[in-house]
Amino acid sequence: MYQGGYTGKILRINLTDQSITKEDLPQKTAKDYIGGAGFCIKYLFDEVKKGEDPLGPGNKLIFAPGPFTGTKIPCASRMAVGAKSPLTNTIGVALTGGYFPVELKYAGYDAVIIEGKAEKPTYIQIKDSKVQLRSAVDLWGMKTSDCQQVIKNKLNDQSVRIACIGPAGENLSKMASIINEMRAAGRRGLGAVMGSKNLKAIAIKGTGTIAVSSAEKFKPAVAAMKGAMKDSPTLYPFFSKTGTSGGVDMFCSLGIFAAKNYSATGEFEPVAEIGLKAQSSRRAGRAHCSGCPVGCTHLKRVKTGAHAGTIAEGPEFETLYSFGGMTGVEDIDSVIAADRLADEYGLDTISAGVTIAFAMELYEKGILNSDDTGGMELNFGNHIAMLELLRLMSFREGIGDLLADGTKAAAEKIGKGSEKYAMHVKGLELPAYDPRGSKAQGVNYATAYCGADHNRGYAIQEIFGHSIPFSVNRFDIKRKGELTAFNQDMRTAIGDCTTFCIFVFDMALAESAFQIIGNLLSALTGFEYTQDDFMKVGERINNIARAFNVREGFTRAQDTLPNRLLTEPLKAGASKGHALSKNDLDEMLDEYYTKRGWDLNTGNPKREKLVELGLEYVADIILK
Amino acid sequence: MYQGGYTGKILRINLTDQSITKEDLPQKTAKDYIGGAGFCIKYLFDEVKKGEDPLGPGNKLIFAPGPFTGTKIPCASRMAVGAKSPLTNTIGVALTGGYFPVELKYAGYDAVIIEGKAEKPTYIQIKDSKVQLRSAVDLWGMKTSDCQQVIKNKLNDQSVRIACIGPAGENLSKMASIINEMRAAGRRGLGAVMGSKNLKAIAIKGTGTIAVSSAEKFKPAVAAMKGAMKDSPTLYPFFSKTGTSGGVDMFCSLGIFAAKNYSATGEFEPVAEIGLKAQSSRRAGRAHCSGCPVGCTHLKRVKTGAHAGTIAEGPEFETLYSFGGMTGVEDIDSVIAADRLADEYGLDTISAGVTIAFAMELYEKGILNSDDTGGMELNFGNHIAMLELLRLMSFREGIGDLLADGTKAAAEKIGKGSEKYAMHVKGLELPAYDPRGSKAQGVNYATAYCGADHNRGYAIQEIFGHSIPFSVNRFDIKRKGELTAFNQDMRTAIGDCTTFCIFVFDMALAESAFQIIGNLLSALTGFEYTQDDFMKVGERINNIARAFNVREGFTRAQDTLPNRLLTEPLKAGASKGHALSKNDLDEMLDEYYTKRGWDLNTGNPKREKLVELGLEYVADIILK
Repeated sequence: MYQGGYTGKILRINLTDQSITKEDLPQKTAKDYIGGAGFCIKYLFDEVKKGEDPLGPGNKLIFAPGPFTGTKIPCASRMAVGAKSPLTNTIGVALTGGYFPVELKYAGYDAVIIEGKAEKPTYIQIKDSKVQLRSAVDLWGMKTSDCQQVIKNKLNDQSVRIACIGPAGENLSKMASIINEMRAAGRRGLGAVMGSKNLKAIAIKGTGTIAVSSAEKFKPAVAAMKGAMKDSPTLYPFFSKTGTSGGVDMFCSLGIFAAKNYSATGEFEPVAEIGLKAQSSRRAGRAHCSGCPVGCTHLKRVKTGAHAGTIAEGPEFETLYSFGGMTGVEDIDSVIAADRLADEYGLDTISAGVTIAFAMELYEKGILNSDDTGGMELNFGNHIAMLELLRLMSFREGIGDLLADGTKAAAEKIGKGSEKYAMHVKGLELPAYDPRGSKAQGVNYATAYCGADHNRGYAIQEIFGHSIPFSVNRFDIKRKGELTAFNQDMRTAIGDCTTFCIFVFDMALAESAFQIIGNLLSALTGFEYTQDDFMKVGERINNIARAFNVREGFTRAQDTLPNRLLTEPLKAGASKGHALSKNDLDEMLDEYYTKRGWDLNTGNPKREKLVELGLEYVADIILK
Repeated sequence: MYQGGYTGKILRINLTDQSITKEDLPQKTAKDYIGGAGFCIKYLFDEVKKGEDPLGPGNKLIFAPGPFTGTKIPCASRMAVGAKSPLTNTIGVALTGGYFPVELKYAGYDAVIIEGKAEKPTYIQIKDSKVQLRSAVDLWGMKTSDCQQVIKNKLNDQSVRIACIGPAGENLSKMASIINEMRAAGRRGLGAVMGSKNLKAIAIKGTGTIAVSSAEKFKPAVAAMKGAMKDSPTLYPFFSKTGTSGGVDMFCSLGIFAAKNYSATGEFEPVAEIGLKAQSSRRAGRAHCSGCPVGCTHLKRVKTGAHAGTIAEGPEFETLYSFGGMTGVEDIDSVIAADRLADEYGLDTISAGVTIAFAMELYEKGILNSDDTGGMELNFGNHIAMLELLRLMSFREGIGDLLADGTKAAAEKIGKGSEKYAMHVKGLELPAYDPRGSKAQGVNYATAYCGADHNRGYAIQEIFGHSIPFSVNRFDIKRKGELTAFNQDMRTAIGDCTTFCIFVFDMALAESAFQIIGNLLSALTGFEYTQDDFMKVGERINNIARAFNVREGFTRAQDTLPNRLLTEPLKAGASKGHALSKNDLDEMLDEYYTKRGWDLNTGNPKREKLVELGLEYVADIILK
């Protein structure tokens, strides 16, 4: 028998030759990479060749739930989606929840690897061991919620779960997301990878179960987890009650809610307009992922005006930032409508909003003019233009074609010094936390293996006062390199691999958390994991991911932040005057690389570190 | 045991006192009224008091499938929805398909009768014998597709089937529909009745089966039905292949596709713009009701422009008429978008389009001006205004409040001679077939028990050359009264009661059809029905429906057509020069009442006719 928590099977679907094969998951892979993001990264490093076009048939798209997925462990029925990212050209992973991951697991797979490219629009139907390729010619062009409903109707089974792309993915927008229900594997343009393969959707239903290695140990371990969740100061009190949307008020009060393309952080703080109070009059119930007692998703409903009747699952905090703070839009109903539209078109809300904000700043600066926009006024705060741009980008119409691939690609095409307004790292648009007032976030943005992503190494210690592994001051640069390495490894292992929900993470920084999660994983799989083991898995994955990028030509030079952040201090708000110089960043990076055992000049992992992590074969490939 | 084809149970839910009761369906009711519309009409006559406010708690809302629903009989898994109509103040019934009706039957009910009014927004969950009232406070304001999805998520069961209202029903628009999936019980404002009861939705799941009285007779009877369907000249060749949207080309070629508020029939014939060819490049597959091998629903998808990504189930022919022909809108993508929006807001597409066309004509005539419209240009052909009006009517914003209750109510409020542009009979907006070129349609519009409804007595003989009960010329007035009574009785019995789909009806006019359907119903229920028996049921129901209206004060005076049709001949097209005078109509009506055994002066059913139909108690009530 295979380890508990796993099905032991990888499903490989080649869309070019329509071959469908099932192969064993090596137990060493399970032990060393746990699952989810770990599996995606391991398989991508091993199978996607150097220099492969992310939108070519040689790229691979991997859907991988984790060992916890589909078990009785709460808040863990998620999955990672991975591919070489067309937006960043790095290795790319995005996590998502909902109900699709559980079905994938129950259908019998620890991962599905999609290869090649279908000749015509196709969708995949998976029902346990039966896998079929079906025509998606009729589905092409549909919004994501319609696509899901139409597939359910076609299959005459309302209970199948579907992950799909919208028009943005079909049109190869490098900001395109993959949507299951109204949840997104949002970042890094994985929807475009799916679109490039002519793959509209995967519809899945599974009837299997997940074995537990030691039922005797598992039951108390789950109980301990539930107890710890109950004791969490944020999980139920914050995430159940308000969801992430409460973040606007909080991060404005800290002066790090980035605004107007990062030009007005601390200055433009639309708490009254898009904060908790504005949200709460529009609440329309909550939504849960499979096996989640928390229900952090708060639906919002527009009651009057042009968008009356529109609902969104959210907007989540980051979407309030991108469509609200960054664009300067103060009309909450338009932000809700934009959130929904982005999900329907299958566009990442963060990248889309930041790209719109970028275009707005260029327009205000005269770098783009009304000839470029087709007559559209594109000033900050123009909510009508924001909504129109979402459509134009998704269908690559007018100026939307220029913007559809995000800030980096747009800046390259526009020239005229526009790059300095492009708020991205390695092509990935920045999230909400202004690193001038939260330094470790900056180190994480600069170094995370897939561009500026808060979720890969969120500096929770800077915000919530956690003291594990140690206490920090958010304005200091001291020990932030070291902290970032810890956060990245910890989140990777416990969150992105198991695939435990990140919102339960604050708990993971309470003393007993590693033990609780270690007990769970050990009882479930039969593998033993101590805190050190966990951290080692996280470190291994961050190293192999780094190695992927090194092989693609990335060096320390790309571990940086947009120039604006390194040259302009914060002008207003609770973090007024705080800045982050190039020297500050370099100092933190030095510490980060040192902590990681990476070369200070190149940023490459050193051979001995890779060997220590069991990655000698990786060293042989990247360190010639 | 109860008769086959029936569950034998009526579910009664009182929203005022929250009582839930189950009562027996009297076998005599089953035999005499068959089911569906028959049950609705019988219970409404018996239980809704004279003068009851259609939007008050005294009105009742009835959902009734038929004996065929949920059996192996194809194309019959439908239901009728009934209430006193707020739009017409007559008895009101609308038929719909989809999957909800089957679940209702499998849950164990031949009808659900909703009474009273909930204190707060409520939805009903029915799972077999378990019936629960649940809060719909969070659902209020949602569009219909979101509402259905959110309920499925709330109940954590994607397989429940839901009938619900959108914002239009909540806001008591008298044109509001009830939507299940994307199918509508569209006409006569039944959605407003549901809204007036604070009832947002009914979610249902049934696990029962439907008994068959004689399996031995049933099997060959079903086979005969399928064979006849296969032989039908229209069912597969037309409805499967193109769906109803093929009607635009056909009825334009006959010169009776009503246009620009019936002012330009034969003149404005947008075949190239919204006809088959324009439709076919936008096709996106088909959809089926439960147990239907035909799949007449053709999805359409907008590929470019402002509505790119929008799909609709349809637009059906009548929607192409109302949002296309009547409004003069030639932009097919806007018609598709309007179709979808109307379904999302829960607005009847026919009444909504005709009301918009009415407003457009008033605007062109200067009876409404830009002060009234809030600055909106409201000329014929303005597709942007059309879409905007759908929202305004659904939310009763601006001029939408004036128009939300349809043409009759709007004309009464506007005055200034506007009534002559209001294309309705008894408040119900006219369908597509211009009766000046199709006289029996006119008699049916004038006399159908719930206003100008093509489906209650469609004069198929005028269009498709059927010779049962006899051949006619569509321009003649000869025998059209007689034909209309036949069509109404036939359709009521075979279609609205059994609840066999009307699109299979052409077959019902082949010689063997009555026998086929009679055999089916006999084998299924154990009751014997000859063609005469069927026709008697249809006649009985048309009489009791008429009696309901008589009790409400309706007389022959309301059996008329909009003045425009009785005074203006057709100016162009294949029916050019044809007209329908008041005298013509009166002559046809005289014949109709005579055939019906109704009084020529009042239009009331005579006592002897009611007695003959077993409706002595009805005579006692209405004929004092």
